[in-house]
Amino acid sequence: MTTTELKLAPTGPATLSSSATMKALVYHGPGKHVWEDRPRPTLQDPGDAIVRITTSTICGTDLHILKGDLAAVTDGRILGHEGIGVIEHVGPGVSEFHVGNRVIISCVTACLKCDFCRRGMYSHCRHGGWILGNTIDGTQAEYVRIPQADGSLYHFPSGGDEEAMVMLSDILPTGFECGVLNGHVKPGDTIAIVGAGPVGLAVLLTAQFYSPAAIFMIDLDEKRLAVAKQFGATTLINSSDGRAADRVMELTEGAGVDVVVEAVGLPATFAICQAIVAAGGHIANVGVHGKPVELHLEKLWDRNISLTTRLVDTVTTPMLLKVVLSGKLQPTKLVTHRFAMNDIMRAYETFGNAEKEGALKVILTNGGPQ
Amino acid sequence: MTTTELKLAPTGPATLSSSATMKALVYHGPGKHVWEDRPRPTLQDPGDAIVRITTSTICGTDLHILKGDLAAVTDGRILGHEGIGVIEHVGPGVSEFHVGNRVIISCVTACLKCDFCRRGMYSHCRHGGWILGNTIDGTQAEYVRIPQADGSLYHFPSGGDEEAMVMLSDILPTGFECGVLNGHVKPGDTIAIVGAGPVGLAVLLTAQFYSPAAIFMIDLDEKRLAVAKQFGATTLINSSDGRAADRVMELTEGAGVDVVVEAVGLPATFAICQAIVAAGGHIANVGVHGKPVELHLEKLWDRNISLTTRLVDTVTTPMLLKVVLSGKLQPTKLVTHRFAMNDIMRAYETFGNAEKEGALKVILTNGGPQ
Amino acid sequence: MTTTELKLAPTGPATLSSSATMKALVYHGPGKHVWEDRPRPTLQDPGDAIVRITTSTICGTDLHILKGDLAAVTDGRILGHEGIGVIEHVGPGVSEFHVGNRVIISCVTACLKCDFCRRGMYSHCRHGGWILGNTIDGTQAEYVRIPQADGSLYHFPSGGDEEAMVMLSDILPTGFECGVLNGHVKPGDTIAIVGAGPVGLAVLLTAQFYSPAAIFMIDLDEKRLAVAKQFGATTLINSSDGRAADRVMELTEGAGVDVVVEAVGLPATFAICQAIVAAGGHIANVGVHGKPVELHLEKLWDRNISLTTRLVDTVTTPMLLKVVLSGKLQPTKLVTHRFAMNDIMRAYETFGNAEKEGALKVILTNGGPQ
Amino acid sequence: MTTTELKLAPTGPATLSSSATMKALVYHGPGKHVWEDRPRPTLQDPGDAIVRITTSTICGTDLHILKGDLAAVTDGRILGHEGIGVIEHVGPGVSEFHVGNRVIISCVTACLKCDFCRRGMYSHCRHGGWILGNTIDGTQAEYVRIPQADGSLYHFPSGGDEEAMVMLSDILPTGFECGVLNGHVKPGDTIAIVGAGPVGLAVLLTAQFYSPAAIFMIDLDEKRLAVAKQFGATTLINSSDGRAADRVMELTEGAGVDVVVEAVGLPATFAICQAIVAAGGHIANVGVHGKPVELHLEKLWDRNISLTTRLVDTVTTPMLLKVVLSGKLQPTKLVTHRFAMNDIMRAYETFGNAEKEGALKVILTNGGPQ
Repeated sequence: MTTTELKLAPTGPATLSSSATMKALVYHGPGKHVWEDRPRPTLQDPGDAIVRITTSTICGTDLHILKGDLAAVTDGRILGHEGIGVIEHVGPGVSEFHVGNRVIISCVTACLKCDFCRRGMYSHCRHGGWILGNTIDGTQAEYVRIPQADGSLYHFPSGGDEEAMVMLSDILPTGFECGVLNGHVKPGDTIAIVGAGPVGLAVLLTAQFYSPAAIFMIDLDEKRLAVAKQFGATTLINSSDGRAADRVMELTEGAGVDVVVEAVGLPATFAICQAIVAAGGHIANVGVHGKPVELHLEKLWDRNISLTTRLVDTVTTPMLLKVVLSGKLQPTKLVTHRFAMNDIMRAYETFGNAEKEGALKVILTNGGPQ
Repeated sequence: MTTTELKLAPTGPATLSSSATMKALVYHGPGKHVWEDRPRPTLQDPGDAIVRITTSTICGTDLHILKGDLAAVTDGRILGHEGIGVIEHVGPGVSEFHVGNRVIISCVTACLKCDFCRRGMYSHCRHGGWILGNTIDGTQAEYVRIPQADGSLYHFPSGGDEEAMVMLSDILPTGFECGVLNGHVKPGDTIAIVGAGPVGLAVLLTAQFYSPAAIFMIDLDEKRLAVAKQFGATTLINSSDGRAADRVMELTEGAGVDVVVEAVGLPATFAICQAIVAAGGHIANVGVHGKPVELHLEKLWDRNISLTTRLVDTVTTPMLLKVVLSGKLQPTKLVTHRFAMNDIMRAYETFGNAEKEGALKVILTNGGPQ
Repeated sequence: MTTTELKLAPTGPATLSSSATMKALVYHGPGKHVWEDRPRPTLQDPGDAIVRITTSTICGTDLHILKGDLAAVTDGRILGHEGIGVIEHVGPGVSEFHVGNRVIISCVTACLKCDFCRRGMYSHCRHGGWILGNTIDGTQAEYVRIPQADGSLYHFPSGGDEEAMVMLSDILPTGFECGVLNGHVKPGDTIAIVGAGPVGLAVLLTAQFYSPAAIFMIDLDEKRLAVAKQFGATTLINSSDGRAADRVMELTEGAGVDVVVEAVGLPATFAICQAIVAAGGHIANVGVHGKPVELHLEKLWDRNISLTTRLVDTVTTPMLLKVVLSGKLQPTKLVTHRFAMNDIMRAYETFGNAEKEGALKVILTNGGPQ
Repeated sequence: MTTTELKLAPTGPATLSSSATMKALVYHGPGKHVWEDRPRPTLQDPGDAIVRITTSTICGTDLHILKGDLAAVTDGRILGHEGIGVIEHVGPGVSEFHVGNRVIISCVTACLKCDFCRRGMYSHCRHGGWILGNTIDGTQAEYVRIPQADGSLYHFPSGGDEEAMVMLSDILPTGFECGVLNGHVKPGDTIAIVGAGPVGLAVLLTAQFYSPAAIFMIDLDEKRLAVAKQFGATTLINSSDGRAADRVMELTEGAGVDVVVEAVGLPATFAICQAIVAAGGHIANVGVHGKPVELHLEKLWDRNISLTTRLVDTVTTPMLLKVVLSGKLQPTKLVTHRFAMNDIMRAYETFGNAEKEGALKVILTNGGPQ
């Protein structure tokens, strides 16, 4: 980006002195995260926006980062890639947003100009992708800098609900794009979702856009299965006895399912997917995998299946926004806990013990005057 | 665009004094166009680029403008929406192009940010679309200002040929997107193209990407049909006897054609399309129509056809670029005449008498030092 | 079909003597139809099945036939192309059905072997298509002969409801295939349906498989609009003031709708469709048209729209069956009146005065022992 | 099939006495195959046809059978699933073919009626699929019985060439459907084909229907690579040094290829595919695999790729036929050797030593009076 000669004259209130600070959740290596003072972000590029965060949430990926699973995340990084907020400053290259606009922050940063963005693969944007709370500072803070703001923010709709809208930052497009769209869910289909965590439940909610006839939800945890029932699953299968695949094959009279969505990320759950996909069916992988899996091509080579992988592109955010606003989807169903942002350490604890706490999504709110 | 506070410090050579002039082809109302002095364009918005034109061409649409058919084009407008050139200046919001880059100018201006651009409908861009040589000054000049440069320019490939590449500005994507893609041309298809002018020939060239088995070319002009033969048409049909549709039905044993592309824009040619489309087939309209047509729904309602319209989006330009570079498509076949840019009045005369002159595309070159 | 040498030894009870009779609704020219004695049908081809009708219904097309609008229907024809029944006899070429099977009769006869059937265009089957109650005797009778039985019947599902299943003969696949699939209805879309008769309502019901955000229903009749409201329409527009198109454009802030379905078949309703389709949108024609319409290509040529026509293919019947069985669609909502089959003359009267009677679909039942 | 009561009165010459014999290539367990006398086949079901074979060929799968790799193939089976011939007898359920018709035999038997056939998945037909020369007797003989003849035969086109047409039995649709269609080859794409055997070459030939810009052919054998060059490959990569993947990544500047087709069936070749597929790309598996492979989901989970498997459905045979007849594809390029059918033992030897003999497809002809 050739911006060296740019004299930034950003719109918005008087530029902050460099000494202005804020609170943020900072990663300090495996197992260490602190709610601490950090300098407030400032505009760096013409396409940047500075957003004051009003609502955020924690993602399962944040827990992976805390464990040290993601080498790209280094000491000092502010975590978080989901959020709602209000724009405080915009660079001169931003045309679609103005100071004072209330916005939904996408977990994926998109320049819209590169070859990948042109093809709708924002996740592989040559100037962005998933960088927020990963290779640049994120949203679990009072303020965040959003690069490529025109491609990475969405206008908060009038009449929208903040808790519902923050689900559009990541979890709903992830479930929908990686699971439902890639799985080609069709009216009348029999589908299975392996994993009833927040992402699997997002798949469950958004799969119903296409009216499948039967939805099998597979998980080890009875509580999560019970939630899935409330969310529209038609058959619950507890896989703790190792017979989940057999059970699906019995229920489908040996045919298997039209679509199976992997929403866990382990070899064992991927094995279930392979065992239950019908001839002509689809395996849509959503889970983040840390190891190779065994693919039984000796059984599948003549089964006419497709297997897809995808990092969420967030290209369907405008579509999802319309569906949420129409009332056909209530994403707030996913919210189980609420915390003030400065109580985020306790929020992480709750979310980190999701099974015990019955936690799905936890809402973080920056309350009161800043 | 909120750029009022932007202090432009554009990259590139010292900004031109406002008195710098250039030559351009200027429209002065129906029937009047003059090659005359005009001020050189300067940057107006952060996303602008100023391009020095090296090659341009004339489009059939330019002739329509000259006749006064397009009310949006007003006195004083520089015409032209096709061109190759070199960037002289870029605004601070341009990230993909730099001063000195050689570029292909797209006839469609795309912000890439609006809802239409996000859906790949650049033609309906809320900040652009077809504006060049229409509602803003165009490319039949020594210099042109290109707004939304990141979405409206393409890098000229090393090893590319300027005469070939200028066909990517408009005519090739128009033929390909509006005719071939919308017509769903498939291997083995029997297709018909109504109109063997430059656009119809562009359809003919790009339809062959998909290996149709038979291509019927329909036109009144034997010379153009002869060209079509050289370009790959398998059957030529001269429609001057009013029996073109009958002829197609005979040749297809009453079945009609899988795809028919309308590349003229008249009720009579559209009538041929309706008469020859097979059950289950496609009518892809490319022609610019000035009047309503009669649609025979009383015959077509149960024929399972599709009819499409489209203003070129130029979303396939990168794909077309690859195919041209691979040697599978030789767009220079379309070039019949070459002129120096300052001889453009004569070029218009030749192009305006296309039938007599045997003209398809005429190349305009800004030669020598500026 | 080369069956001359075939000695038919049909399965099923002893073949009927040629003197066996039945009651049937017979067309005797415009305005004349009689419930009268007719010979029972017998097997004629190896692929035939004889079905004893238990439930049938009347289609708007039957009213057109009665008016004399369909020249192909000649004096003496038994009407009706919808029905549920039980197989009494099958020819030796039938492999998928047996005597005693309860079946759904498709309005379209499909050989499955010809080029059109192979492409899923059963409506244009070279040995079938819509022939039942048209060019061969139909289902408004006690018995019917179904040619190409393997392609034209569907197994009645255990647990199915007869009144629901008879809607799969024609009206549901018609609404779904011609309106919803051809219209490419997507989650979050704003769609409009012009015409709230039975077919328009079938579009309305099946469009909801894809979770559109807004559904505008346009009709002249307040009672039908009220029904549409109950069926899921989000906005009702009474077009009697001639301002329906204006109203849609106001409601969509000038954008128009993503999908508009024409479910009437008149130039005036088709004109509404053209006026309200958004750039990039779809017009899906379902209505049966008797006259040409004016297509405003002078306005639409650059709007990137698609317009489709289709005679129902019934290829989606298996999919629809699954959705109905899953409980996501209640087609019995369409049933407003019920008659014994031998009271069919009165049923026609009611259906023929649909507006006054508030009639949508009328169910005909062959009751008691045959 | 309930045909017990059917009195077959087949069309055609007087039924053969049961003592009529023919010559056939019979499998007698691993490593043993003999050209020996066998009874001529007779009609068994109403949908059967008996075809006198004029031309056949040998498939790589036949070699697998000879090795004993396919447990389903038992002692006494006549091999072969490809062929051209003339119909001698047809059952009464056959409507599309008559005695004396010259036909192309599809390797896949399709009833056209079951749920899989309705979806175009003939390979999984509930009454057929790949059974010829597998679970029923095949085409390497003087006569063959073809069940479900209407779905399993295609009319030999007038003007067709027998050697070209026999490639439509299996190898061309296999390459096209499993490799090219599943791989979504598009104009301008960079594609790679791993394996330059007959199937890989069929992929190479049919991929060119879609005008990819670059085709990398990867194989261990220089002779096959040289053939690939003649067939249209743009880059040859000899993988014998284990650096094929590195080479592809260098050539694509680290991007990888849009489509990679696996046409071998080994873990090592599948590993190459995974290593070179671009983000957003497709791996289309064609190879027959005998063992599981390692799938690197830890690298691929966020790469937005698709992986497909498919047993050829032969649904594209009509399309391929049109393309061959149009002259755009010369499948006889694949023919390297020709034998009389009764010299088939020698043909197997040649084909079994393909590398040494430079063999691709070997043609077998039943010549002279039978």
